[in-house]
Amino acid sequence: MLKTPAYAAAAPNQPLAPLTIERREPGPNDILIDVLYCGVCHSDIHQARDEWGGGIFPMVPGHEIVGRVAQVGAGVTKFKVGDLAGVGCMVDSCRSCGSCGRQHEQFCEQGAALTYNSTEMDRKTPTYGGYASRLVVTEHFALKVPESLELAAVAPLLCAGITTYSPLRQWNCKKGDKVAVVGLGGLGHMAVKLAVAMGAEVTLLSTSPSKEADARRLGAQHFASTKDESIFKKLAGRFDLIIDTVSAPHDYNAYLGFLRELGTMVLVGVPPAQPLHAFSLIQGNKRLVGSMIGGIAETQEMLDFCAEHKIVSDIELIPIQKINEAYERVVRSDVRYRFVIDMASLSKQ
Amino acid sequence: MLKTPAYAAAAPNQPLAPLTIERREPGPNDILIDVLYCGVCHSDIHQARDEWGGGIFPMVPGHEIVGRVAQVGAGVTKFKVGDLAGVGCMVDSCRSCGSCGRQHEQFCEQGAALTYNSTEMDRKTPTYGGYASRLVVTEHFALKVPESLELAAVAPLLCAGITTYSPLRQWNCKKGDKVAVVGLGGLGHMAVKLAVAMGAEVTLLSTSPSKEADARRLGAQHFASTKDESIFKKLAGRFDLIIDTVSAPHDYNAYLGFLRELGTMVLVGVPPAQPLHAFSLIQGNKRLVGSMIGGIAETQEMLDFCAEHKIVSDIELIPIQKINEAYERVVRSDVRYRFVIDMASLSKQ
Repeated sequence: MLKTPAYAAAAPNQPLAPLTIERREPGPNDILIDVLYCGVCHSDIHQARDEWGGGIFPMVPGHEIVGRVAQVGAGVTKFKVGDLAGVGCMVDSCRSCGSCGRQHEQFCEQGAALTYNSTEMDRKTPTYGGYASRLVVTEHFALKVPESLELAAVAPLLCAGITTYSPLRQWNCKKGDKVAVVGLGGLGHMAVKLAVAMGAEVTLLSTSPSKEADARRLGAQHFASTKDESIFKKLAGRFDLIIDTVSAPHDYNAYLGFLRELGTMVLVGVPPAQPLHAFSLIQGNKRLVGSMIGGIAETQEMLDFCAEHKIVSDIELIPIQKINEAYERVVRSDVRYRFVIDMASLSKQ
Repeated sequence: MLKTPAYAAAAPNQPLAPLTIERREPGPNDILIDVLYCGVCHSDIHQARDEWGGGIFPMVPGHEIVGRVAQVGAGVTKFKVGDLAGVGCMVDSCRSCGSCGRQHEQFCEQGAALTYNSTEMDRKTPTYGGYASRLVVTEHFALKVPESLELAAVAPLLCAGITTYSPLRQWNCKKGDKVAVVGLGGLGHMAVKLAVAMGAEVTLLSTSPSKEADARRLGAQHFASTKDESIFKKLAGRFDLIIDTVSAPHDYNAYLGFLRELGTMVLVGVPPAQPLHAFSLIQGNKRLVGSMIGGIAETQEMLDFCAEHKIVSDIELIPIQKINEAYERVVRSDVRYRFVIDMASLSKQ
């Protein structure tokens, strides 16, 4: 086993602190990655604090991982030592069910092995995430990371990027489409950049008028404050597609009014249950849909798209020692727009 | 003006009773239809009792109309005297907006002229429905009715038929698809017949185990009682498409569990607002959508499909004098599956 320095929550009510974990020796199809950067996703905090229940502790969070390949198994064909590699929300799946066959490993019928707070497919070995100096993963679940992009800012693409890229592709976002992005946070700022790169005319809808300047800097052509109730009438029927990234309660019925007939609103945020009126969908044959990250092939496609369009996340780089402080700031939405941990800091303990 | 015997609600709290209304003289593009049959839609009752508010009284309900053309305007090309003709939920629209251009007249940006409890596009002249001996309508909003089908049983196709045909087509129902129909009433029984004719493997989901025999007679291959909670686990992830016709409260989240990944549940019934958990859609990239009747071209396509596949509604034929009694029975769901008024009874006052 490989002794690996990491940061972990020992229990739900504990701050993250140094912990040495063990990684498996790389098997024939595995690669060993020296982690360079790991993004801080809001879901890291929910899980480290066990807000979703059922957490496996000690927990090493982190599923927005970029690093360099330090070792490859004998059967590995996709990577060689020295290559960049990325790991997102999953590290394995059954690879034989219908969902895996359709390249939707995130819906694996046996349940994918998530990158942390989960188990390997043996359903015994706990998985530990990217707040660690290194990681072992089967090459099928590692992504090729373009050398051309700023690496620290690539890390959040592995979750926030694919979470917003996938619904834009599923719903055929294309040149001239009128797309609204609801909420400007980690997900929202990626949705704006990606939709703009696909040629859409993007409107950012936010409760915070102070986000307008940032929205425009990120490429949004329009901005509207949802605190201003008149916009629900003014923009009624305007959008082909809405990417709703908000996890705070908000009225789906009101936002569905923004869609044109046959338009689609995609939920990628998870508010508490909200009341839905059937008529909000029936009038105009509208669609309210969900989207969950993306499969491995689609994640690779997203990274290649980002390389082509020079898209990365807007980040604030922190040493691992600042992680607990960063968590507090994420909870306060005090980050534009993603913290990324510089993993070199881990060896400076 | 053409004096026309009809049945009307004089006010929301009044039973329907005979009333003579006036129809316009047919203009160059109009046809005059002698009404043979008119179906009784549950929405007739909601509106005659003003349960949706804003009702225009006196009100002559009825938007499932089949009759024979008695007169045609000089510019009419689609019909000649003696032809069968049908009228559904709309009698006109602006015909120039984007929605009308896309043949979605039901979403006309100016608001379509509904067949009753509405106005003509002049926004002054009230419209009166099919509980009447005759009707004048612009030929564009009249449908060609196949001579080969049982005419009384064709009437409900104009609303219940198109309401279920359109979502099956929108969501590409095809041979081998696993389709669930929720609820076996006026809409549900049409959804079963149409989905079976499209080659789908159909499961009827109902709270009433007593509906199983009928469901199978209508062509459903499977039946499950939603009173049996074990089916929510047993049939989890099974269906490509769900047509949900139920207007009573029911848990959308539970029913979404029946869908495979990327599956679609279409609401055509209108329950009170129901709580929706975002995760019910996000897990599996699922789709909850609405559908509202269909445009004129699609309604014609539906009638032609029904002629080809010999599909009509299951009906109970009544004289107009029994309409108030029929309303009570519809409210009690005591009809299999649609009342249709034999309009010849109107002249026997």
